[in-house]
Amino acid sequence: MSGGRRGGSLPPQVERYARLLARRTQAMRSTAMRDLMSITERPEVISLAGGLPDTASFPPRVFAEIFESIASEACARALQYGPTEGLAETKRCIREVMSAEGMRVDPQDVIVTTGGQQVIDLVARALVDPGDVVIAEGPTYPGAIPAFCSYEAEIVQISVDDEGLRVDELAEQLEQLRALGKRVKLLYTVPTFQNPAGVTLATGRRRRILELAREYGFLILEDNPYGLLRYEGEPTTPLFALDGGEQVIYLGTFSKILAPGIRLGWVVAPTPVREKINIGKQAADLCTSTLSQLMVHAYFERQRWRSYVELVSTIYRRRRDTLLNALAEHLPPEATWTVPRGGLFVWVTLPDYIDTTDLLARALRENVAFVPGEQAFVDGRGKSSMRLNFSGCDEQQIREGVRRIGEVVEEQIALYGTLTGQPRHGARSGRRESTAKEPGREGAGSEPGRVVPMRRRAPGHR
Amino acid sequence: MSGGRRGGSLPPQVERYARLLARRTQAMRSTAMRDLMSITERPEVISLAGGLPDTASFPPRVFAEIFESIASEACARALQYGPTEGLAETKRCIREVMSAEGMRVDPQDVIVTTGGQQVIDLVARALVDPGDVVIAEGPTYPGAIPAFCSYEAEIVQISVDDEGLRVDELAEQLEQLRALGKRVKLLYTVPTFQNPAGVTLATGRRRRILELAREYGFLILEDNPYGLLRYEGEPTTPLFALDGGEQVIYLGTFSKILAPGIRLGWVVAPTPVREKINIGKQAADLCTSTLSQLMVHAYFERQRWRSYVELVSTIYRRRRDTLLNALAEHLPPEATWTVPRGGLFVWVTLPDYIDTTDLLARALRENVAFVPGEQAFVDGRGKSSMRLNFSGCDEQQIREGVRRIGEVVEEQIALYGTLTGQPRHGARSGRRESTAKEPGREGAGSEPGRVVPMRRRAPGHR
Repeated sequence: MSGGRRGGSLPPQVERYARLLARRTQAMRSTAMRDLMSITERPEVISLAGGLPDTASFPPRVFAEIFESIASEACARALQYGPTEGLAETKRCIREVMSAEGMRVDPQDVIVTTGGQQVIDLVARALVDPGDVVIAEGPTYPGAIPAFCSYEAEIVQISVDDEGLRVDELAEQLEQLRALGKRVKLLYTVPTFQNPAGVTLATGRRRRILELAREYGFLILEDNPYGLLRYEGEPTTPLFALDGGEQVIYLGTFSKILAPGIRLGWVVAPTPVREKINIGKQAADLCTSTLSQLMVHAYFERQRWRSYVELVSTIYRRRRDTLLNALAEHLPPEATWTVPRGGLFVWVTLPDYIDTTDLLARALRENVAFVPGEQAFVDGRGKSSMRLNFSGCDEQQIREGVRRIGEVVEEQIALYGTLTGQPRHGARSGRRESTAKEPGREGAGSEPGRVVPMRRRAPGHR
Repeated sequence: MSGGRRGGSLPPQVERYARLLARRTQAMRSTAMRDLMSITERPEVISLAGGLPDTASFPPRVFAEIFESIASEACARALQYGPTEGLAETKRCIREVMSAEGMRVDPQDVIVTTGGQQVIDLVARALVDPGDVVIAEGPTYPGAIPAFCSYEAEIVQISVDDEGLRVDELAEQLEQLRALGKRVKLLYTVPTFQNPAGVTLATGRRRRILELAREYGFLILEDNPYGLLRYEGEPTTPLFALDGGEQVIYLGTFSKILAPGIRLGWVVAPTPVREKINIGKQAADLCTSTLSQLMVHAYFERQRWRSYVELVSTIYRRRRDTLLNALAEHLPPEATWTVPRGGLFVWVTLPDYIDTTDLLARALRENVAFVPGEQAFVDGRGKSSMRLNFSGCDEQQIREGVRRIGEVVEEQIALYGTLTGQPRHGARSGRRESTAKEPGREGAGSEPGRVVPMRRRAPGHR
């Protein structure tokens, strides 16, 4: 321990350093997901908080074979620096992944990045001046917020309903922002199996957003980590494919179709923007791990990637169904939630008087974790919602986790009833059938800016 | 190929995107080293340009064993997200490395990063507002410049002589900057075996810089990738150890003592700054590759790391001697250069009328590459200097590379003589003895802001 380091926590010393911090750090807050990691790493905690894929399903034998082949064929290269934009063979794997979702791309137009997160950072670095507007879904991926805040963007969030971002509200906002003289540089969206809402942007809306992008002169960052993790229904065409890559910057990642621990993602962008992203990447970390890039290449050479995506999709579909059944069983009638057709997340909305950040503190005492909805907004909305993940826990844990959440929610509702003297809207009458359709129950979707939860449906049905 | 993408290179479309680019991108330029990578990857090119370690000396068998053990013991974990600040076991390896250079650190004070480059980026993100001053050596590590420019820092460079950064000039500059009302937030330095000059900051100067940091209230970013690659002489105490970590942020990396392809570095910083770095890292890439972190841990468990550092040090010492001998043999008497006691680089200075950026174009036609000195400055200095690396090529390549550089330099000198009608200062009379001492030959060190090259000495002697 270096002398004096711990002393850094004393107020005068904090003050000394505070003077030196950049203005942007005032807006950069830690995301709850990240802060929770140390708690949720404890084995007794059931975490429905993170977006963790099930890496235990990856065969250790395949892992060993991949690195055995790198050791014998490319050891020195795997340990060496690579070009900033990425290795040619890794880009060919990326072309293959994009092709599986109906996109055509020239490997030359791809930059391999240190995970998908880095793409958000580098795109913001290339485009955003302080005060520029970035439009995002409300709720949005919580991890995107600190990236945009790093460049002092003003984030404007547009409501989401069961067909994704509301384009009517978007058009209104764009008009208002124009009237205010604000520069809108970027619209950030996770259009397919959205994080955190689980909803998918309808194709008609996709076309409308592209029209608006051309009309108002902004770019779209399409973040598509989950597109291949579809559990039912027909594929939706990515914005990038609809647009041909003129207004759309595409973000892909191996995190959900292979593994996040290798930190490998990519970006495809129009040439003038891509050149700036490339320089930004030099500044950020010189180049992406050659080890990880060659691992992906060796893995793809074995032709296993599609069957692994099928394997995890099967696992996640079952887990999603288990989660939806458990929600129907354990959450009170006041709760509503979305029913995703793919991806990793369900968005649950509780009565307005429940603050899910407070609820989380209570839930953690019961050894269960989720992401409070507030984390997905910059403006205080989402306080009575939560994001639940279903990819990272097994079915028994999901059931038990939701049971515990149900208990703390019931407790809060009962407490509210006692404090206000109001009877609850509908008491739970025993265990409901988890497969019962309850089409009449919808959330408070008319509240401006509030996510409209989709109708509660039986899992497996749409 | 998506329709319209190639069209992005048409002027009206470039204009369309140019409107959307952030102001900072105007100052962000690509480093020559990175741009050169595609050329220098061609097998016929001898590149003395990059800072590439000799990864071919790493035994593939050890590589295979490491990943075999990860496969059997920690496969799912290696593929999973990790905490933003890094894995505990990796931090223990970092403590061991720092201890080998006489530094004590609590693993809790460490953040594991995506290479050392990311530390520069994250420290700048945490500290630098547009217009803030970052002081750096002149010449400085070329890769640091785009990182500071990403945050619109004003970079002020202080001359370097054979004892490192000139503290007298630093004190003067600080006084002038204070008088101008400029905020100096950070001094960035590579004090030991500096990149690119190869010089080491004297201990007395280290103490003086720490005094100045306290007096003027700025922090120091000590970038120490090469400290353990010492080929002669006694170790110098790192600034971090002298200071106890109050004013000094420490940057370490596994790139030179193990491998850059795994992108693994770290930062130790005072708590209030470290917290902001951690949030910045969440925004930048969520967490560092778990795969790489567990690789380092498995490698350290085998106790091989110190013997590998000894092995590469032995290789690099020989290559340095080969480079210095070749310079004495092939460069004309007008050239001077530094004699590093460790690290990877020699800084060569040619007559003022030679522009090394132009020379590089000529050298590339002879299939040899170096970094033009201009890349290590923000203000146009360094035009007649170049950085030569001696770690990435074998001895035969180094000799041949320098021979080719010598030829193009001779050509330029002869051309200059013809054009100006001036006889050259001293004609080369046959091959010089590479071990001859020539103590009287010094560079134009009195030129303000110019690097003072050290006396040309015989390799192996100090």
